[in-house]
Amino acid sequence: MKPVNHISIKKGMKVSDLVNQMAGSGVMGAGRVAKASVIMSEMFSDKECTVFLGLAGAMVPGGMKNLLVDMLKSGRINVFVSTGANLTHDVFEALGFNHFQGCAKADDAKLHKEGIDRIYDTFLKNEVYEKMEDFFKKNFDELSRTKNIQEFLWKLGEILPESDSILKVCYEKNIPVFCPGIADSGIGLMIWGRQAEGKKFDLPVFEDMKEIISLAWDSKKNGVIYIGGGLPKNFIQQSMQFSKGAMYGVQISTDMPQWGGSSGANLCEGISWGKMKEEGRYIDVYCDATIALPLIWASVKSKLP
Amino acid sequence: MKPVNHISIKKGMKVSDLVNQMAGSGVMGAGRVAKASVIMSEMFSDKECTVFLGLAGAMVPGGMKNLLVDMLKSGRINVFVSTGANLTHDVFEALGFNHFQGCAKADDAKLHKEGIDRIYDTFLKNEVYEKMEDFFKKNFDELSRTKNIQEFLWKLGEILPESDSILKVCYEKNIPVFCPGIADSGIGLMIWGRQAEGKKFDLPVFEDMKEIISLAWDSKKNGVIYIGGGLPKNFIQQSMQFSKGAMYGVQISTDMPQWGGSSGANLCEGISWGKMKEEGRYIDVYCDATIALPLIWASVKSKLP
Amino acid sequence: MKPVNHISIKKGMKVSDLVNQMAGSGVMGAGRVAKASVIMSEMFSDKECTVFLGLAGAMVPGGMKNLLVDMLKSGRINVFVSTGANLTHDVFEALGFNHFQGCAKADDAKLHKEGIDRIYDTFLKNEVYEKMEDFFKKNFDELSRTKNIQEFLWKLGEILPESDSILKVCYEKNIPVFCPGIADSGIGLMIWGRQAEGKKFDLPVFEDMKEIISLAWDSKKNGVIYIGGGLPKNFIQQSMQFSKGAMYGVQISTDMPQWGGSSGANLCEGISWGKMKEEGRYIDVYCDATIALPLIWASVKSKLP
Amino acid sequence: MKPVNHISIKKGMKVSDLVNQMAGSGVMGAGRVAKASVIMSEMFSDKECTVFLGLAGAMVPGGMKNLLVDMLKSGRINVFVSTGANLTHDVFEALGFNHFQGCAKADDAKLHKEGIDRIYDTFLKNEVYEKMEDFFKKNFDELSRTKNIQEFLWKLGEILPESDSILKVCYEKNIPVFCPGIADSGIGLMIWGRQAEGKKFDLPVFEDMKEIISLAWDSKKNGVIYIGGGLPKNFIQQSMQFSKGAMYGVQISTDMPQWGGSSGANLCEGISWGKMKEEGRYIDVYCDATIALPLIWASVKSKLP
Repeated sequence: MKPVNHISIKKGMKVSDLVNQMAGSGVMGAGRVAKASVIMSEMFSDKECTVFLGLAGAMVPGGMKNLLVDMLKSGRINVFVSTGANLTHDVFEALGFNHFQGCAKADDAKLHKEGIDRIYDTFLKNEVYEKMEDFFKKNFDELSRTKNIQEFLWKLGEILPESDSILKVCYEKNIPVFCPGIADSGIGLMIWGRQAEGKKFDLPVFEDMKEIISLAWDSKKNGVIYIGGGLPKNFIQQSMQFSKGAMYGVQISTDMPQWGGSSGANLCEGISWGKMKEEGRYIDVYCDATIALPLIWASVKSKLP
Repeated sequence: MKPVNHISIKKGMKVSDLVNQMAGSGVMGAGRVAKASVIMSEMFSDKECTVFLGLAGAMVPGGMKNLLVDMLKSGRINVFVSTGANLTHDVFEALGFNHFQGCAKADDAKLHKEGIDRIYDTFLKNEVYEKMEDFFKKNFDELSRTKNIQEFLWKLGEILPESDSILKVCYEKNIPVFCPGIADSGIGLMIWGRQAEGKKFDLPVFEDMKEIISLAWDSKKNGVIYIGGGLPKNFIQQSMQFSKGAMYGVQISTDMPQWGGSSGANLCEGISWGKMKEEGRYIDVYCDATIALPLIWASVKSKLP
Repeated sequence: MKPVNHISIKKGMKVSDLVNQMAGSGVMGAGRVAKASVIMSEMFSDKECTVFLGLAGAMVPGGMKNLLVDMLKSGRINVFVSTGANLTHDVFEALGFNHFQGCAKADDAKLHKEGIDRIYDTFLKNEVYEKMEDFFKKNFDELSRTKNIQEFLWKLGEILPESDSILKVCYEKNIPVFCPGIADSGIGLMIWGRQAEGKKFDLPVFEDMKEIISLAWDSKKNGVIYIGGGLPKNFIQQSMQFSKGAMYGVQISTDMPQWGGSSGANLCEGISWGKMKEEGRYIDVYCDATIALPLIWASVKSKLP
Repeated sequence: MKPVNHISIKKGMKVSDLVNQMAGSGVMGAGRVAKASVIMSEMFSDKECTVFLGLAGAMVPGGMKNLLVDMLKSGRINVFVSTGANLTHDVFEALGFNHFQGCAKADDAKLHKEGIDRIYDTFLKNEVYEKMEDFFKKNFDELSRTKNIQEFLWKLGEILPESDSILKVCYEKNIPVFCPGIADSGIGLMIWGRQAEGKKFDLPVFEDMKEIISLAWDSKKNGVIYIGGGLPKNFIQQSMQFSKGAMYGVQISTDMPQWGGSSGANLCEGISWGKMKEEGRYIDVYCDATIALPLIWASVKSKLP
């Protein structure tokens, strides 16, 4: 049995040293963060491994955009699956809008009158939707020449103004972006708006499954990273069944397995389904991703060449 | 100020009496259950109100199928939005399969060898997927004549064997069923399988938005019931923006607002977005829905004519 | 394998029938409530079993006082361990004060000016402390003749005005009441106040351990019921070590095992410590006790002779 | 309104820089960690402020001992309140024992046979209790000359073998240690064991309240730091009432306000009670303390002279 080594904090210490220290605490919270860093580094340095990143939760409003862009730019993420909301908020910022530091106890009726939308304790000006509408109107012909959701999202990334945007970096780095629930988002509303104006345009809902399942099937090994649960996690997990299971897995979530839902399910549950390999290396981190992910990524990044 | 009246338990008491008692406890857990029952009854007895039900989480594996069928049969649910998973598990049961009472600590590698899939502490025989495949193969011509996800799901409900199935009751009762994330489910895999066999069939991803937004727009008042969060809640919420906000709302979720995500967001947050009315009546119940929903529904049902 | 039987709600159904229905859902939330009811009934009907009840969380402000009094009056609870807070709030009510149905979003500075103390969404008039002080001053001589915490609490129960009070029923029914953290409560403040006035009175902190450990040791079998975690649960659990482990256990808590603390620890963890028997019957219910406990108690009560 | 600045991760960055970056994310998880660091630094640099630290949860088994010793050695913690469990586990380590990195899915019956106690995913050899018994037998005369819990704990710290122990550093640095629930712990069991052998020794349960209330009363300003909730938090909070409220507050907890209990209550609730000042600076961090505390402390420490 390996003893618990208590974490020691040195003045001016690096994040990577802190995460190394956390490894000593076993597998309670800190130990799980450290193990996530080790497993993520392993999947990144395994040349045979295709890495799937699933993103849910208010990660762009929560200040994680640059970090996600950084992960995508690192060349280690091969497939990206997101909720529509995170992509919509990425588009907002690419169009020059900000999210704002607000307050969870604010008076929602007052905010509504002031044109402020609340995301727990983050604020957003409702006028972003009008500007987004202008952008989609202007670029609709180009967007409407795409044939599936993935193509559409790359095109969207391509035409966004220059900025450190998640969609733009996916386009530039040729990282396939999947968003099976795209209708459930501000981007979806933009398409609905054009349809309401009489434009003929839609995209096939099942089409992208071919591509993501092929990506899982064709690679020698797969690794999965889940920031939050929801549709992105489950969509990647169902593809893993066709790869005899992922070899590496890191999950960061505030959801719990006890409720039985897919979002909170421990990665080991995937072994029964053939979505994770019995001999795989995986860890569940029970933590707000805006806290755990910066720690893990800073540690992983320090080990990249 | 209204005093807290302590809950009194009588031998042989009815569920509706218990929920009435719970009203006395103010707005902690029990009080929230009672308030949810009152608000759900109000929205059901308001003739001008269109009721939208969003369903997420492992509700069919968790034993909630009959209750949901009962709600849908009551004639009070006008629009139904679900995750793909709950519909898939509904199809499993309609095809004659069961979920089983299992164990969360089971050895997942052993389960995998035995062909058992684990959903926390519920089990499922993996062979259901083969039988589902047979069913989809046999009926694919008929299914593939549908033009949007909603039509497809009604057709699926129509052709399912006779049983108390969620999809069948929606078909029989003409309740529109939306499932924007359908690709992320066993049903999605069935379509992928047929496409892989060379069948030409797909469905438009944005098309259904017209219908659900029209339903929200055209009604005098709207009410929302969220069992879990995820895509179904958010998809209904985004439609509510086009109705000047829902007048009634009941949310049952184990997720918390503190993480900032849409699933755990308090209904009042929707006021800032124009998704809920300032003068609306709504309540958030922080509870496993398999516990709170039977209480609430039993109480609401007792008041139905 | 036992199939999941879906819960059916009948109009006018009894709580006990609902809980029986919940047994069909396996062991997700509803199934756990049903199993808790079965195990609690078993421990109550086992004549050789001594039942220990641990109480934490805002259960008196949350409207659970009558239910707890009912459990204590049933004759099935043999030992009671509480936080100081629940006993203090019980005294408030016995002295004629109420808790009030408030609002979690209230302005705390405004409440403070108005003399209102907030307990999440329940309110309390701060003047109760003055009245409590009068009561303790008046009765201090009698109270100060007691020799240990348990005697003190029985005396307090004895002298409280006639009412359905937790402390009074414990006194009347000769149910030993333990409160090892009594200094951390309004009752503790009352003693501090008298000491500050120059009264010589204190009680031994370790003394009560003899009694509770003897109670655990001397009985043929033990059963434990935990409403919340905290000190009451742990204090009972440490006594169980001296009984070769409890045979029955029911825990209702919103805390989770993943954090490693005693409050959220699953009962099975107690097997490793010798606090629970390997062959014991126990269940963890992950739920707000103000929701789950009324369900469980209504079901258990219906089976009592 | 202040815009959300997205966190940027630099290779080799320091923890203090990461926490500074987190400030940009507003007040979701990361922003709360950053704000906690700022407020803790403020209370440490305010010469008029007395700092109270409350400790609950499995923090010593979880690898936090060195960090806590470091905080106590910094000279900034003026009063320390702990659960009995953390002090007991500190004594174990001081006597030469380790906690071990275990596994949450371990077979508890097998562990019991092997003499291993499980604390979620951390293990402990049960033989530590025998060694602890030897230590208490050997030193009981000296320990039993103490007159209150605080004196007793200082004496225990004094006689422990040389090591980086929480109790020893409190003794050496003259930091008052309170543990009102001491009976509920392994240390309590040691005293019970001696009493069972016929030794006459006990300690007054209310006595320490004088001291902690005086400490709160006499200082110009107070600051509170809560790692977990439970008895330590509430015991400090009740003392704050006698100081017209704490000026600074940092709480790190996985508990939630929604259940109404004291452990999860937001610090702002204390304003209504007069436990926190309206104009005070405080923050609630919703996170496993083994993850958030190392981040916060590393950042605070970097700013200490």
